[in-house]
Amino acid sequence: MEPYASMSKEELLEERKKVKAVYKEYQNSELHLDMSRGKPSTAQLDLSMGMMDVLSSDADLRCEDGTDCRNYGVLDGIHEAKVLLGDMIECNPDNIIIYGNSSLNVMYDTISRSMTHGVMGSTPWCKLDKVKFLCPVPGYDRHFAITEHFGIEMINIPMHSTGPDMDMVEQLVSSDASIKGIWCTPKYSNPTGITYSDETVRRFARLKPAAPDFRIYWDNAYGVHHLYDMDQDNLIEILAECKRAGNPDMVYKFASTSKISFPGSGVACIATSLNNLEDIKKQLKVQTIGHDKVNELRHVRFFQDIHGIYEHMMKHADIMRPKFELILNRLDEEITGLEIGKWYTPKGGYFICFEALEGCAKKIVSRCKKAGVQMTPAGAPFPYGKDPHDSVIRIAPSYPSMEDLRMAVEVFIVCVKLVSIDKLLEEME
Amino acid sequence: MEPYASMSKEELLEERKKVKAVYKEYQNSELHLDMSRGKPSTAQLDLSMGMMDVLSSDADLRCEDGTDCRNYGVLDGIHEAKVLLGDMIECNPDNIIIYGNSSLNVMYDTISRSMTHGVMGSTPWCKLDKVKFLCPVPGYDRHFAITEHFGIEMINIPMHSTGPDMDMVEQLVSSDASIKGIWCTPKYSNPTGITYSDETVRRFARLKPAAPDFRIYWDNAYGVHHLYDMDQDNLIEILAECKRAGNPDMVYKFASTSKISFPGSGVACIATSLNNLEDIKKQLKVQTIGHDKVNELRHVRFFQDIHGIYEHMMKHADIMRPKFELILNRLDEEITGLEIGKWYTPKGGYFICFEALEGCAKKIVSRCKKAGVQMTPAGAPFPYGKDPHDSVIRIAPSYPSMEDLRMAVEVFIVCVKLVSIDKLLEEME
Repeated sequence: MEPYASMSKEELLEERKKVKAVYKEYQNSELHLDMSRGKPSTAQLDLSMGMMDVLSSDADLRCEDGTDCRNYGVLDGIHEAKVLLGDMIECNPDNIIIYGNSSLNVMYDTISRSMTHGVMGSTPWCKLDKVKFLCPVPGYDRHFAITEHFGIEMINIPMHSTGPDMDMVEQLVSSDASIKGIWCTPKYSNPTGITYSDETVRRFARLKPAAPDFRIYWDNAYGVHHLYDMDQDNLIEILAECKRAGNPDMVYKFASTSKISFPGSGVACIATSLNNLEDIKKQLKVQTIGHDKVNELRHVRFFQDIHGIYEHMMKHADIMRPKFELILNRLDEEITGLEIGKWYTPKGGYFICFEALEGCAKKIVSRCKKAGVQMTPAGAPFPYGKDPHDSVIRIAPSYPSMEDLRMAVEVFIVCVKLVSIDKLLEEME
Repeated sequence: MEPYASMSKEELLEERKKVKAVYKEYQNSELHLDMSRGKPSTAQLDLSMGMMDVLSSDADLRCEDGTDCRNYGVLDGIHEAKVLLGDMIECNPDNIIIYGNSSLNVMYDTISRSMTHGVMGSTPWCKLDKVKFLCPVPGYDRHFAITEHFGIEMINIPMHSTGPDMDMVEQLVSSDASIKGIWCTPKYSNPTGITYSDETVRRFARLKPAAPDFRIYWDNAYGVHHLYDMDQDNLIEILAECKRAGNPDMVYKFASTSKISFPGSGVACIATSLNNLEDIKKQLKVQTIGHDKVNELRHVRFFQDIHGIYEHMMKHADIMRPKFELILNRLDEEITGLEIGKWYTPKGGYFICFEALEGCAKKIVSRCKKAGVQMTPAGAPFPYGKDPHDSVIRIAPSYPSMEDLRMAVEVFIVCVKLVSIDKLLEEME
């Protein structure tokens, strides 16, 4: 296959004609396909239906210490849920608070609390002239939406195959006291799919922030979301590493069972130092009497232990793996040789991150839409929705069926080709 | 029975000796009884165990419009849950957002949002020098904890048998733009048990606030928590009344199923005008992808409709009624004639509010504790925990068994007698 950039204008025009014809065909097929959000498929949801039976009307809904899970109380979660989620995120149960169904909500509340009450005695951020966050890009749009909502200035940090550009992170964090945090999805990252290298995590743990209320917002959303049993990424556990580095209070770690059991009905948590927990609980006890302990118990009874979660995740992997492989194979077969796009081959998570030629992402997404395939809006993985190179497209293969996906990826490929040819032709003018 | 205040010193000393002997006996019985919190009893929780069976592994977890409740989405709750809770709180489903398990959490978030983002475009409260709330007293300690947490100045408003002192409310609200809200539990009020009169609600709806971002925080926590089938209080629906009065945006109404199904695992909601809803959703969509729809569906399938909730509440009433009657009867038999306390006889809710002689509440609670009976701390139903007359004691009869309650009320009565005698004797010095 010859790279498009090496082709003559005539060859490109010839290729365009062929590709356009295929595109037209798809356009006429009235497709309605969606690769836009990281939603589990129905088959994945079905894996957790057994959870509906573990607590029946004749079940004992008391937890191990005798607490009746049906009644008020237990602000920070039942112990066995802390053990289960602790094993999942490699943390001591004592460092955990169990929340409701959404880790996003926990992150929002964490920022909101810092705005109104500061962090461990610091000035509330709403009283400061300027608050900034570092945002490794591309990243998770809902993270950036939170900081934008609170008027926090976001600074882009380039992502490499090892994680965020740590030279830049270190320089900024140590020199600017208005920088209060950094958003991270360190494992099977959203959307790049990479996992932070050992060196990256160690450098994170050794940061010397100018702001004492600087925290790393470590969203371990895909910690156990592997595609393979053996070929897995490993991520250094950040709480322990921060402790070793003498920075025990520098990180908030977030996780949930959203893409393990049911996305709307899982259990979320925060893990952090005892000092931070004390700070958080001062607020939490005012905010609520406690979260849904029956649902915590339901998760514990269904998964039993971390082995149960692991086995369950391998069933998810069996459904996800062919989808990832389908997309990656087709991209490899159709795009690699043409040199009109790059991507990373992830070993887990929910996304493939396609990097198109500069200035092409919006047009590709728009082309896809016109042919009935919904992609994540171009720009979404960047603060303020602005991709400086207009090149990143997040592909979310989880929700469509294999059959739909087979069609969707072909449409996507044709759109990439078409928009890339147009760009190259334009450059020849 | 002769009022204590009419007795001579000798008679009082004689009475004290008798009462003290009984108290000593209780002290030696090593009791561990709790009338401190409004928690449902185990028998009440058992009423909802059927809810554990309505969604089994072979159930269809799609709601009426076809949405799979197991997956992400539906920010403001599934339609059938809005209909059910709408019927429960007498509001249009379109005016409702369904939340997670805690209406307290919704109230907290409402205040927190107003602090950081204001109300429908107003200046965020955190940017103001002074923010004040009106607090009808005695009231709900957890309301006051929220406003205290955010540094909002709280102003006591006396409660009458018709509701808060509306002359005072009208005067303050219309003259002071730093007053941004008032906490209300309008029906079977916590802790007084009274229901706001028609006139009170109408005057609320006709307030002319100096602050455009003034809101009534209407916590309808006990809206369907009657003790009797026929002899019920009626409360005018505030949203409709505000609309009629030309103040459609002036009220946030909160409710939940916490004391209907399971306290930790119910469904909460807010009902308010479409303008307010739009304002709230701007924030909510940043805070979460959605709440627990499976639990919403579980509630809908279990209760079916408002008749189902009503029948269910009558089962609660059958458990609660004897407890209330026991306490009220014993107070009447033992205290009325002595003129050392007053209380209201509520037709629903969770509390009996005992008003002791001035300066006696703390001592009575402390005496109870020493005899093994835990009461709500004196002062708790007041902002900053300060009861200006030290006279109010909240009695929560729901949690203990009838047997325990029979003992607990006797201890309470003896403590009231003992402390009252001591006060009267002191005054004779």
